[in-house]
Amino acid sequence: MSGYNVKRGRSLLNTPGPTNVPEQVQQAMVRNPLDLGDPRALSMIETCFRDLKKIFKTEHEIFMYAANGHGAWEAALVNTMSPGDLLLVPELGNFSTGWGEMAEALQMRTETIKGDWRQAIDPAKIRDRLAADKNHEIKGVLVIQTDTATSVTCDVPAIRKAIDESGHPALLFVDTIPTLAVTDFRMDEWGVDVAVSASQKGLMMPPGLGFVAASPKALEAHKKATSQRRYWDWSLRLAAESYRTFCGTSPQIQLYGLRASLDMLLEEGLENVFARHKRLARATRIAVEHWGQAGAMELNAINPDQYADGVTTILLKEGYDGTKIRDVCRDELQCALGGGLRNLSGKAFRIGHMGDMNEPMLYGALASVEATFAYLGVPYTPGGVTKAIEYLVECRKRGGKA
Amino acid sequence: MSGYNVKRGRSLLNTPGPTNVPEQVQQAMVRNPLDLGDPRALSMIETCFRDLKKIFKTEHEIFMYAANGHGAWEAALVNTMSPGDLLLVPELGNFSTGWGEMAEALQMRTETIKGDWRQAIDPAKIRDRLAADKNHEIKGVLVIQTDTATSVTCDVPAIRKAIDESGHPALLFVDTIPTLAVTDFRMDEWGVDVAVSASQKGLMMPPGLGFVAASPKALEAHKKATSQRRYWDWSLRLAAESYRTFCGTSPQIQLYGLRASLDMLLEEGLENVFARHKRLARATRIAVEHWGQAGAMELNAINPDQYADGVTTILLKEGYDGTKIRDVCRDELQCALGGGLRNLSGKAFRIGHMGDMNEPMLYGALASVEATFAYLGVPYTPGGVTKAIEYLVECRKRGGKA
Repeated sequence: MSGYNVKRGRSLLNTPGPTNVPEQVQQAMVRNPLDLGDPRALSMIETCFRDLKKIFKTEHEIFMYAANGHGAWEAALVNTMSPGDLLLVPELGNFSTGWGEMAEALQMRTETIKGDWRQAIDPAKIRDRLAADKNHEIKGVLVIQTDTATSVTCDVPAIRKAIDESGHPALLFVDTIPTLAVTDFRMDEWGVDVAVSASQKGLMMPPGLGFVAASPKALEAHKKATSQRRYWDWSLRLAAESYRTFCGTSPQIQLYGLRASLDMLLEEGLENVFARHKRLARATRIAVEHWGQAGAMELNAINPDQYADGVTTILLKEGYDGTKIRDVCRDELQCALGGGLRNLSGKAFRIGHMGDMNEPMLYGALASVEATFAYLGVPYTPGGVTKAIEYLVECRKRGGKA
Repeated sequence: MSGYNVKRGRSLLNTPGPTNVPEQVQQAMVRNPLDLGDPRALSMIETCFRDLKKIFKTEHEIFMYAANGHGAWEAALVNTMSPGDLLLVPELGNFSTGWGEMAEALQMRTETIKGDWRQAIDPAKIRDRLAADKNHEIKGVLVIQTDTATSVTCDVPAIRKAIDESGHPALLFVDTIPTLAVTDFRMDEWGVDVAVSASQKGLMMPPGLGFVAASPKALEAHKKATSQRRYWDWSLRLAAESYRTFCGTSPQIQLYGLRASLDMLLEEGLENVFARHKRLARATRIAVEHWGQAGAMELNAINPDQYADGVTTILLKEGYDGTKIRDVCRDELQCALGGGLRNLSGKAFRIGHMGDMNEPMLYGALASVEATFAYLGVPYTPGGVTKAIEYLVECRKRGGKA
């Protein structure tokens, strides 16, 4: 059976980014560029800015970059901070640490409120630390809405409230990279100062576009911030003839893709997008908890009100190898999962269920994970998929409510 | 939840044709045509003829048509038969009847050996009927290798043997439309005179190409056959400067797709292609038999040695509506199945598992069918997917053997 390992059929992509790019978006990008100044391209780009604001739920400025999420992280920092500025980092998982490391590399300073990677930092700790900072040395708080390494989601409005209670002027930064168009996010209503996102998750796009939304308070801070910058610079982009400039050539073809993605999201309606993710996430957790009765694994997130809608991290008991599960599931069973990151390296794996995802796709992924356990001899209680089916059929009977 | 019915994610196509077109084939067809006489196009087409012979397992002539399977049916008949000629039709299901109806419309005559739509006609009946035809009024026997309506497969070599035992000169026609590159077929070794196929099933192509392979005996019959024909005419195609002619413009873009498909089949190896289909088919039957314990359904095919590798027909007990199952599974659960045809209309549904299909895709389909039963209240024993997983993992442990 020498050709047995030749792969046929569509492979499943169940990582928490990049996510599946729907055919509508793929097809929108199969085109020749127009010239940079073609009014058709310019007006298409203008509608992207307009509709992206609906997704961020903001009336404030939005900046788009030919960059990935790390680029957007950097843009957020260098536009508002100066070398030596102190940032408070409530640790939610790998990505709060990573954003803090980037700030350090950019000559800012960070102070981490240590977390246990299984639950979010109590907002009271943020409030107390800020209240103790009488000289307002802390300039910003770096919040990750959902850390995909841990699949823990934090309560952004509660953090806003904590900052307000402390009477501290620090800017509230929120990373919505894996949550925008997955989980509710309300830039303006929640008083977020800087929100960061990227194209390759809930927006169902190829990687390569980064987004930053900035409140008036963030734009004020920008004026005094002395970090070195040019490509990322908000002033340059705002001062240009049209704010649509991208500091050079615009990523026009990707923007045609974004246009298609925004059309799809607005057609479905954000509330339905969120509900779909909630259903798929809960179905996944139901399967994991069923499998876990055999004692080899459990949900990494501890608190139900901190569960993530776009990804599920499965924590393995001592002796089971998350990397092996991920490798076999991808290389043999044609279903790509996320691995354990940093503290969870080898100790966990992750099922992504964000973006252009539906029930048959999730069923395929859950069954492939179940097959991987069986193949590797990882103890599990069979029937996780059966339980997921039961739950999703119940949702369907009540009109889609998760 | 007004946008709840907006569909997101990839839908599953589990019909017995058209089947999924793999990305490699899609991409091969995204191109501008070359001019008709471009040597690069001509030599590409020549390799398609060459490699298609490997798929039919023949050294004989192959004709390709810009047409669907019905076009290839007609080409087979009008090239070898004359008005008034009698054809023997062993009834396997909808498609033997359909091919016979086409012969009647073309002014040939047919005689059907009635079947029960759940098992193949005993070859002895064919032998006896031919032996009784002392004047050799019967000119051909129309055989469908697998009738997708019934999911019953017949034994082509046994039919050849039956014809030989009768000492009758009738031509053996075989429809391999849903079996080529799904189930083993050996044109030359099995002594088939005319084999018919099409692009949209095991060949993983869009519909639009039809194929006919003709033995020397069929080419002899062709010389005497007086049916009206031009587009389908073998002589015209053979006499042309190059036998690659298509009676006019060649469907060049589709042929680039076919080239990609043949590359994929030859890379995987036909034996592996057949084994993959056998595994997926058996996993499907295991799920169906598990569901069927609740009394609402059973496999339509009765004899295990006549099971089909590319499709499974599920026969429903009185009172259950196959059309409704199919509609809900496609329109709500995003998984397209086949419906019941002709005698089985409304009484059955069909799960296709042919072509560019793998385990995660099948898991998604089986789970979607299971969810459809749950949603509609069709009695079933939950856990069909779990059983399919167990079986396919066992296959994997033994290196892919079904």
